[in-house]
Amino acid sequence: MEIQGREPVKPYKKSADYSYTLGAFPTIELIRSKTAAVREVFVHSTFTDTERLGQLCRENSIPMRISDKQIARLSDKENVFVVGVFEKYEQKLDAGKSQIVLVGPSNMGNLGTILRTAVGFGIYDIALISPAADVFHPKVVRSSMGAIFRLRHQYFEDFAAYRAGNPNQEVFTFMLNGRKQLTVSECPKPKLFSLVFGNEATGLDASYLDVGTSILIPQSPDVDSLNLTIAVGVGTFLFTH
Amino acid sequence: MEIQGREPVKPYKKSADYSYTLGAFPTIELIRSKTAAVREVFVHSTFTDTERLGQLCRENSIPMRISDKQIARLSDKENVFVVGVFEKYEQKLDAGKSQIVLVGPSNMGNLGTILRTAVGFGIYDIALISPAADVFHPKVVRSSMGAIFRLRHQYFEDFAAYRAGNPNQEVFTFMLNGRKQLTVSECPKPKLFSLVFGNEATGLDASYLDVGTSILIPQSPDVDSLNLTIAVGVGTFLFTH
Repeated sequence: MEIQGREPVKPYKKSADYSYTLGAFPTIELIRSKTAAVREVFVHSTFTDTERLGQLCRENSIPMRISDKQIARLSDKENVFVVGVFEKYEQKLDAGKSQIVLVGPSNMGNLGTILRTAVGFGIYDIALISPAADVFHPKVVRSSMGAIFRLRHQYFEDFAAYRAGNPNQEVFTFMLNGRKQLTVSECPKPKLFSLVFGNEATGLDASYLDVGTSILIPQSPDVDSLNLTIAVGVGTFLFTH
Repeated sequence: MEIQGREPVKPYKKSADYSYTLGAFPTIELIRSKTAAVREVFVHSTFTDTERLGQLCRENSIPMRISDKQIARLSDKENVFVVGVFEKYEQKLDAGKSQIVLVGPSNMGNLGTILRTAVGFGIYDIALISPAADVFHPKVVRSSMGAIFRLRHQYFEDFAAYRAGNPNQEVFTFMLNGRKQLTVSECPKPKLFSLVFGNEATGLDASYLDVGTSILIPQSPDVDSLNLTIAVGVGTFLFTH
């Protein structure tokens, strides 16, 4: 069923102008949210639940091809039956919305989980301060369960560059030496806020103590720290609910 | 530096009576919290920060050996410089404490993160309803960052068996069709509670709607669900703070 003469899609590289979803669910999210960016969809010959996907592709004039070879090439060793190839795109954050700022996130699985959590709790603007993992890497897209396509993301060279474009948010930095302890009853509820989280291993450096209100999520002395995704989940839930 | 004539430690199997930590931090946690269970510690010849570890081993009469071969054999492809071998142990939950109940957790990384989060928020009793991932698998131990050694865990055949031994907790089941919406201002605060969470893919089945109060963590329609670890993190933080 291979169509002859077409360039095969190669495994992901950061320098490429395209990436892809792995799995039916994120592919459907992709087509629904970023229709114009979709190049084509590959389906494995053993995939049976093609009705909804096929209809979506037809409605949006997206080529859908059965190609076990292409799926094997892109999906590595994982159990994948659907792949959606899309063009990478650039976005600007909405300066009028509350935001999450990730400073130097390095783990791709964590980054995807954070994107999914942000959308789950109603935050659709995510700033990434470099050096940061690549949001378009298929591993991030996959662990975001397609949430990457629902939100706006933007990379910045440093925190000052982020603030220059987004000056109106009240800033809260999550740090193990934060000055204000986060409690359920006293969580600040400003209209417009930025929640800032550091790298998995190193957290935020001391300079972040003074860019806003530093926040400590109270935790037992029996752990070294919380997992980054948990800190983002708890912090974001309290600020948004 | 290999001591001759000793049996080499083999890579983990569920049926073995031992497991091991990967990394200096969880190994120190192991020695501190479960001293009597430690068999021996392996250190890589390039590991320089041996002072604290060496002292801990000497104080507790734990053999510490330099063995690059043994570390390579146990650590797979990961960057590991310290391995602590320990005997598996059985525990019983403290029926007088608040608890977390995990029904059928299958992902080992998630399970470790949940254990770390539980201890971080002050819950030290974790029930696992079978079929469930193996808490002693090195991947779980590693992602728990050693929190596994700080808490009590116990496997049960089913929820009824769990309740038979722990009848006094007020039960809250976290479900996408939960009847009570979790909010920051109205989270129940019973003295003794069990927070029950389902499998990553399937959640809790409908029978759990009636074993206590079913709870829904409010989430945007733009995601299918929250990641299990995030649900546990948010739920546990609200009940404990």
